[in-house]
Amino acid sequence: MPKVIDHDQRRREIIDATWGLIVRGGFEAATMREIAAEAGFANGALKHYFPGKDEIIEGAFQRALERTSEHVAERVADRQGVDALWAYVTSAMPMDAEAGEAARILLSFWEHGLANERLREIYQGHLDRWHSSLEALIAQCRADGAIRSATPDVDLAKELILMNMGATAMSVIGPQFATPAMLQRQIDEFFARLTRP
Amino acid sequence: MPKVIDHDQRRREIIDATWGLIVRGGFEAATMREIAAEAGFANGALKHYFPGKDEIIEGAFQRALERTSEHVAERVADRQGVDALWAYVTSAMPMDAEAGEAARILLSFWEHGLANERLREIYQGHLDRWHSSLEALIAQCRADGAIRSATPDVDLAKELILMNMGATAMSVIGPQFATPAMLQRQIDEFFARLTRP
Repeated sequence: MPKVIDHDQRRREIIDATWGLIVRGGFEAATMREIAAEAGFANGALKHYFPGKDEIIEGAFQRALERTSEHVAERVADRQGVDALWAYVTSAMPMDAEAGEAARILLSFWEHGLANERLREIYQGHLDRWHSSLEALIAQCRADGAIRSATPDVDLAKELILMNMGATAMSVIGPQFATPAMLQRQIDEFFARLTRP
Repeated sequence: MPKVIDHDQRRREIIDATWGLIVRGGFEAATMREIAAEAGFANGALKHYFPGKDEIIEGAFQRALERTSEHVAERVADRQGVDALWAYVTSAMPMDAEAGEAARILLSFWEHGLANERLREIYQGHLDRWHSSLEALIAQCRADGAIRSATPDVDLAKELILMNMGATAMSVIGPQFATPAMLQRQIDEFFARLTRP
């Protein structure tokens, strides 16, 4: 019986290895040679699973975005109204080790993606979906009477994304400016503002 | 009479050329070959002015930080109290083309600096000086009775830096989330909070 190779499983292993290299050493550390060594593949074997390095990097980026989205969805679960919005906003902030790792990856992709049209598109799609989810939650809170701010929902959703991005950047490059306590206060201030007319 | 070479001038030209390459194509575009071509030097001539690429990159980073600091100092000038704090905070935000260029450079350095101890140290020093300046301005405003927030000065200064970093990141990677109008509202909200007990 011929050996069955699970291609999807191998691709996940390659992406996980790439993720680990980027977390530890940034994009420069993720060479094809290092990825192959880290994943336990012979040099040159990666090409059976990915056409080239660009596709591996793209896969690692997609994985980073999916991990964030899954983490948020788990924490929101079946909450409703302000409770759901609060869980959404809080769980997206880089306040634990796993989120810190995702922030490190994201920062590398921001830089790398600026010169790569495909990565830019993937990220813009992610930002758009994120913005739509937040806007829908905010609209629901407003319908419930829990939001009285004069700022339009579309802008409140953008502000939350802006807040999250600042926290993400600083959790990596200047963590003393983005401690969990500071990020929590920032979220609390935002929610206090929502109820002010 | 021997030809006089102005070494400092040449070094500035090399750093400017490097800056331009990073703005247009990120770190990956700033190879020694490209830097030499952009600055109008023969291949290999750069070594008369800098020991290696690391020192050129370091020079470009220092220049980016200096440009930001000089821009802020010009706008604050001889203002006092809340007026000075407002000018400081506003002028550091990426709300014009020059600041947008500096933001692009900074994003590249964040990523690159994570794996480079010397760049990390330079940036931490910059953040510390920035934090001290803000804290001193905030303390002056509080002494004048213009700040009534219960949040300690040291934390208000950190929040301003966090706000700025988010705006910097988003002005490059998702400018629709960091329009001048949004950034202005964020600043206005912050100042409104300062006067609330």
